[in-house]
Amino acid sequence: MEKLFIIKIGGNVIDDPGKLDSFLKEFAGIDCKKILVHGGGKIATAIGKKLNIQSKYIDGRRITDDETIDLVTMVYGGLVNKKIVAKLQSIQCNAIGVTGADANLLPAIKRPVKEIDFGWVGDVNAENINTETWKLFLENGITPVAAPLTHDNKGNILNTNADTIASILSVSMAKHYEVSLLFCFEKNGVLLDVNDENSVISKLNPKEYLSLKKSNKLFAGILPKIDNAFDAINKGVKEVVIGNSSQLSSLINETGGTKISL
Amino acid sequence: MEKLFIIKIGGNVIDDPGKLDSFLKEFAGIDCKKILVHGGGKIATAIGKKLNIQSKYIDGRRITDDETIDLVTMVYGGLVNKKIVAKLQSIQCNAIGVTGADANLLPAIKRPVKEIDFGWVGDVNAENINTETWKLFLENGITPVAAPLTHDNKGNILNTNADTIASILSVSMAKHYEVSLLFCFEKNGVLLDVNDENSVISKLNPKEYLSLKKSNKLFAGILPKIDNAFDAINKGVKEVVIGNSSQLSSLINETGGTKISL
Repeated sequence: MEKLFIIKIGGNVIDDPGKLDSFLKEFAGIDCKKILVHGGGKIATAIGKKLNIQSKYIDGRRITDDETIDLVTMVYGGLVNKKIVAKLQSIQCNAIGVTGADANLLPAIKRPVKEIDFGWVGDVNAENINTETWKLFLENGITPVAAPLTHDNKGNILNTNADTIASILSVSMAKHYEVSLLFCFEKNGVLLDVNDENSVISKLNPKEYLSLKKSNKLFAGILPKIDNAFDAINKGVKEVVIGNSSQLSSLINETGGTKISL
Repeated sequence: MEKLFIIKIGGNVIDDPGKLDSFLKEFAGIDCKKILVHGGGKIATAIGKKLNIQSKYIDGRRITDDETIDLVTMVYGGLVNKKIVAKLQSIQCNAIGVTGADANLLPAIKRPVKEIDFGWVGDVNAENINTETWKLFLENGITPVAAPLTHDNKGNILNTNADTIASILSVSMAKHYEVSLLFCFEKNGVLLDVNDENSVISKLNPKEYLSLKKSNKLFAGILPKIDNAFDAINKGVKEVVIGNSSQLSSLINETGGTKISL
């Protein structure tokens, strides 16, 4: 099977034009099929503040009300997404910006109301992803750039976590490609010592992970990320790499970051 | 050649959720290949006001400065475009929302500064339009919905008039399809008496147009629209229909509006 990189970037890159530029140059240079999934960043909060839209929380959980879904549709689906696309086009990467509503790429279900009504939040499922259209783009030399938005097929845009989109998309695309899923963040990888960026664990398989967890050597905040990574791998993704967005090339050629595989 | 409808809607539909809903239902029902081009509407001005972004004019001409291009990228490319797409998806129309930067669909040139610096405004040219990608979507059952935004291939999004995009796209697509270009606005068509919506001229060819112009029977405001229509027809578009956005079906089946052809 042909290789496909699915790469997720978050706020630390999106909010910093210099970092974003360098990242996109490295991304454009990847000579393989690839998909970029971006998060939101602080810009939505900044614009929301000016528009007098307050971030709402219930029991510490973020709520997406009517105003907020319009805000993130504008900012993530419009401003952030199109700036990335225009930049990539200028450096010979034929990018197309999409939300999950576009060409029904990411159908979702509005999260059912239980204790908390999360509002316009969408849960995605690997089985429902429209892999044929993602493939159509990739096979025609088009690189999708996905904003963290899905839709409910009832006319509503939904807010969906970018990490979740990247994972679930990777699982569903693993039917057609040898998928490497890269989570880019502000750290150099999974660290043995959270305060030492040189303490990157370069490889992690389930056995090594179990032993590190037993000896309490890992920072608690990274555990859910690793658990998600193994979940993706168990569902067919070939490898997950966690590392620094400023070192994309080394994550691609496996000289940097933490490579998680079976 | 197969038929293709390219349909342009403006502020009178976009700013009115009820009208937009009915229009999109009729649009989704067109059993032919189709492209929707939408303008901006007043919502950008309203959001701009809240963000304290003033509309700027020089000699009565609108200027797109840094703040304004970000605003219209958010509002046209994000909010307006994605709402239309989500709605169309809910009524069995497999829409994809695009700007001209996406998949390089509408490359443009930033308008050169002469007497006036228009700012981030893009001029498009039929020869440069990426018809292969438009075709790729259409041939795969995907209906493009285009926001009035282009790009300069240097990393910048540009503001481009939606009427212009619809015309130039029609001319370039006429190589591959029998194109009908529909301009939907608030009037029933070209009127003999601008105050009488029942005075629609149902057909107009160059000879008839000349004779009406000579006798000063036409409202001056409609003349540039008709001139543009004949220009498109002279460049290969099969027909241009001008009519009311609330009567889309009758414009499609040629029982309403003004049909302009050779």
